Amino acid sequence: MPRSRSSQVRPTGPVRPGPDSRAALRPAAGVIDSGFWHARREVNARVCLPQGPELLESAGNLHNLRSAAGRADGTFQGDYPFLDTDVYKWLEAASWQLAQAPDAVLEAQAEEIITLVEAAQEPDGYLSTWFQLGKGEGRYTDLRWGHELYCAGHLIQAAVAHHRATGRTRLLDVARAFADHLDGVFGPPGSGKAIDGIDGHPEVETALVELYRETGERRYLDLAAYFVDRHGHGLLGGESYCQDRVPVREATEVEGHAVRQLYLLAAAADLATETGDGGLRAAGERLWHAMTTTKTHLTGGVGAHHDQEDFGDPYELPNERAYCETCAAIASVQWSWRMALLTGEARYSDLVERTLFNGFLAGVSLDGESWLYVNPLQVRDGHVDPGGDHSARRTRWFRCACCPPNVMRLLASLEHYLATGDEDGLQIHQYVTGTYATDQVSVGCVTDYPWHGTIALTVERTPADRPWTLSLRVPQWCEEVRLRCGEEVREVTPADGWLRLERTWAEGDRVVLELGLEPRLTTADPRVDAVRGCVAIERGPLVYCLEQADHPGGGLDDIVLDTARPLAVKHRPDLLGGVTTVVAAGRRRPAAPAGWWPYGPPGTSPGDGGESVELTAVPYYAWANREDGAMRVWLPTS
Amino acid sequence: MPRSRSSQVRPTGPVRPGPDSRAALRPAAGVIDSGFWHARREVNARVCLPQGPELLESAGNLHNLRSAAGRADGTFQGDYPFLDTDVYKWLEAASWQLAQAPDAVLEAQAEEIITLVEAAQEPDGYLSTWFQLGKGEGRYTDLRWGHELYCAGHLIQAAVAHHRATGRTRLLDVARAFADHLDGVFGPPGSGKAIDGIDGHPEVETALVELYRETGERRYLDLAAYFVDRHGHGLLGGESYCQDRVPVREATEVEGHAVRQLYLLAAAADLATETGDGGLRAAGERLWHAMTTTKTHLTGGVGAHHDQEDFGDPYELPNERAYCETCAAIASVQWSWRMALLTGEARYSDLVERTLFNGFLAGVSLDGESWLYVNPLQVRDGHVDPGGDHSARRTRWFRCACCPPNVMRLLASLEHYLATGDEDGLQIHQYVTGTYATDQVSVGCVTDYPWHGTIALTVERTPADRPWTLSLRVPQWCEEVRLRCGEEVREVTPADGWLRLERTWAEGDRVVLELGLEPRLTTADPRVDAVRGCVAIERGPLVYCLEQADHPGGGLDDIVLDTARPLAVKHRPDLLGGVTTVVAAGRRRPAAPAGWWPYGPPGTSPGDGGESVELTAVPYYAWANREDGAMRVWLPTS
Repeated sequence: MPRSRSSQVRPTGPVRPGPDSRAALRPAAGVIDSGFWHARREVNARVCLPQGPELLESAGNLHNLRSAAGRADGTFQGDYPFLDTDVYKWLEAASWQLAQAPDAVLEAQAEEIITLVEAAQEPDGYLSTWFQLGKGEGRYTDLRWGHELYCAGHLIQAAVAHHRATGRTRLLDVARAFADHLDGVFGPPGSGKAIDGIDGHPEVETALVELYRETGERRYLDLAAYFVDRHGHGLLGGESYCQDRVPVREATEVEGHAVRQLYLLAAAADLATETGDGGLRAAGERLWHAMTTTKTHLTGGVGAHHDQEDFGDPYELPNERAYCETCAAIASVQWSWRMALLTGEARYSDLVERTLFNGFLAGVSLDGESWLYVNPLQVRDGHVDPGGDHSARRTRWFRCACCPPNVMRLLASLEHYLATGDEDGLQIHQYVTGTYATDQVSVGCVTDYPWHGTIALTVERTPADRPWTLSLRVPQWCEEVRLRCGEEVREVTPADGWLRLERTWAEGDRVVLELGLEPRLTTADPRVDAVRGCVAIERGPLVYCLEQADHPGGGLDDIVLDTARPLAVKHRPDLLGGVTTVVAAGRRRPAAPAGWWPYGPPGTSPGDGGESVELTAVPYYAWANREDGAMRVWLPTS
Repeated sequence: MPRSRSSQVRPTGPVRPGPDSRAALRPAAGVIDSGFWHARREVNARVCLPQGPELLESAGNLHNLRSAAGRADGTFQGDYPFLDTDVYKWLEAASWQLAQAPDAVLEAQAEEIITLVEAAQEPDGYLSTWFQLGKGEGRYTDLRWGHELYCAGHLIQAAVAHHRATGRTRLLDVARAFADHLDGVFGPPGSGKAIDGIDGHPEVETALVELYRETGERRYLDLAAYFVDRHGHGLLGGESYCQDRVPVREATEVEGHAVRQLYLLAAAADLATETGDGGLRAAGERLWHAMTTTKTHLTGGVGAHHDQEDFGDPYELPNERAYCETCAAIASVQWSWRMALLTGEARYSDLVERTLFNGFLAGVSLDGESWLYVNPLQVRDGHVDPGGDHSARRTRWFRCACCPPNVMRLLASLEHYLATGDEDGLQIHQYVTGTYATDQVSVGCVTDYPWHGTIALTVERTPADRPWTLSLRVPQWCEEVRLRCGEEVREVTPADGWLRLERTWAEGDRVVLELGLEPRLTTADPRVDAVRGCVAIERGPLVYCLEQADHPGGGLDDIVLDTARPLAVKHRPDLLGGVTTVVAAGRRRPAAPAGWWPYGPPGTSPGDGGESVELTAVPYYAWANREDGAMRVWLPTS
């Protein structure tokens, strides 16, 4: 494990609260040098990102831009009005990647695509190849499904990333022209603007806040605020799918299409951060609590329904039909990170960690070659897969390929979600081997987390003459925490998730945090009907699952876990790129009695007995990387 | 309770195996005079059927026929290519109703609509207003979704019903012209026919068998056999949705769109019955077993997924997202009845009974004014209903209104699903107050089933000189059966579901069957993950549920049933049109501890304690007839 670098790092990143904002915490710079996330990001850089242009070419996305620019046959390829955004998300990802390390090939690819985007843009700033190529009836005639502002949002985010990463303004100029165009068209009644409207898919709102942050242009912030507050007033017919049933400020439940809901709430958090809007902050806190207590899967995944891709009712958290779209996990991370910056509270980063290690990371294969759009918590014995975008099997690319470039941009910018700074010092939210730095201080970190719980921190840059606080997030799941400072070792129990170490630090000072990683069994609130009588295996931030590949000789649906027997840990460098497995004792239920009806009086079903089986649980993020087969996160106990 | 009629009854009905068929049993005639089903059929006759023409007018179905006939503006109203079938199903229902009792108004309405159907038909026999009015690209260019043969199927079924009920041939002439046209167009490679193809939605197959039965024209049977066997060969791309992934003869699982699967299997049973095809019979027996053991809800409802309206994986039987389309329950009854005729086995009618009393009957409101398309087994506290066709709230009519006229036709023909005859005598499958009759014998029945278990049977017509067997189905759920013949009372335990009473009967002979109706708790096979740790309340053929309306002071998701306390029965003539309720003891779990994460170590969730609650369970078929609120069939026990 290499020693972390202490080089000065330039804070770029996707969420940069402005100088006058009310952020409790501001993102610190991060570098990831080695370890778990470094390996995942290497695959992103080496496999996923380089394949982007070719996949965007074969799926027609680049063709559409070329057509709109008058450089192709004028047809639109593909089935959806939002296909431009796959290009923008890839550009954003490439930009964050270029911010980390120069890459002449990647840079040339990005610049070539930006040239295409420039050429496709209408003189007045409008840009949606779907409408430009005649697939839609006319600009802004179908705000419910047309996705024009959604496209603008991803364009803006890509442009901000490109500007922050490279200092160049060419994509930013395109984005500003589109934003200025939108500002000229959309506004409330009485504003003199042509349209009082919102997009059925929120996204432009949070992008406009970031454009304000990047340019200082207040109009963009105001436009974002207008859009956020016009949701829920029936402008699109009042559907929860479009986040139009109830205004954000009044909502008591997360509802409707999960990605739309969470992008909208990310924007609400951004606005509260920039403007101090207490109503939006309270709504965010209320809705985040509602989401985590009643509508979040153990993996951090959200979205219970295939149909409508939406949240279910409270405690409706199915396993085999968990939708848990990869994009929704990303949106959850984006929202929670903004809430962490706004409030300074550790729980938001607890959910970020859980989501990153489980519901998010499962979305990309270990080799970076294939993807999951939906992330179920169970695949049954005898599963017949319908194929298509919503398959429970990994897929090379999707007809609706929103998820893959979304994964790429989050992985490529992950170092910006690790740490924050405030007047008092540095807060470390996520543990990686690398460096965390504010303008004043920097701390190096060496860890083999999440496989081992030892996190060795070294102060690398500090003012010599005044105290500051190094705050370490102690994960919500962690029950045993030890801190070593020099010779001293002590048990600690942080009250609010933060372990705060205030002192006058010297360069070279070392602190070692030890997080207990005993594997554990987890149960759910009894209202989660789907997992009654079951436990899940977890270790550290990782949710585990059983896969068919590790359990020959029978299916998984008859497996029963023996909770009385201890769990054992076994590191398997050979398996799935190197994982720590958890070994448990269980049995396979005896065969059901013959008969045609599976219901009957209590006691008639095959409960006890059956052959003993050693169960090998692997991290959920690594599932579906071997042959097709059954998988279970939640395991019956009797 | 009136004395049942012993009048001679004419066997009409929807499934009439031909004289050379291999049916083990042949439908007997039935009359329903009074009691439970009589009341439901009265609502059907008095409310549902008379409203049909007006609803078909306002939804555009009749307009489309008028347009195709050149008597309206030539536009197509509505969103689906199969809207003609709503008209045909209503005509079928009206015909069965007219077979029971003269009704001049209903008859005039039917004849007027038949005149419209006649006028809409093309000279060559083709009839699909969707394609005739230019909504489709051209005849048979979209067999996957065009539904042209599906429309033909429902037209044929309506025509057979109209002919059997009235003796008139005008609709039958229309249907034969369409069938002859299809026979001229469709056939296997080498047959000289233009198209080797099938319809994405099976239905024409079983209709063609019935047309063969009605006309004696063998070509129709052969065409049906051709269509059935061409499924599963990739003619439509190989999707299970369209029943095109695997040939019926080779299938081991029911799969894909539930209604499509079951209509296809009904046709396979018809073919096996008419031709003695052992492969199709074996497939039917195998697939029925696969469906009932692993893919049928307690209510008899089938179809686990909203998305695609399809069967799920084995043992994937969700509660709140049970799709259980009303049409799928009807299709299940149609298939099972055909299997009962083919094999003579009682279990098929066991499932018919369960489905009729629960998953089917819930589809129509008690007042006949509104409907459920989907029939979930749970509505959660805090449910936000999306509205639309797939709402968990009753709806006046649907955009896709397949279910309401399907309910009407089954209720109007229900007397044909009650009894059968064979060389040995009469078999009674379902118990009603009324009469069961073959050419040789007739038996009257008086019962207050399902509220009471006493079934009083009187031989009303019998040859005096030779013995025959009166066979009574003893329901699969029934554990206590007593038989009274004169003074003799005896416990009986039928081995195969049939209680066979062979003797030389005299007119006026009485037999009283007593089915024990103690309320009972039911559990599921442990592989049904969705209901682990839960029980359901049942009594006789009825599945019960809790509704919010009977449990003020809190929601239903915290209710726990106390299995140690006895169940009590309380008849409530005031409630829901008069139902027997089951009263149980339970408690409401204490509130969950504060905190944002609903998962944790075993023992941390609120398990024990809480306030005692008296639980009032009502029959599932009667749910959703009061104010909106939560509902549960399966109840946690700890």
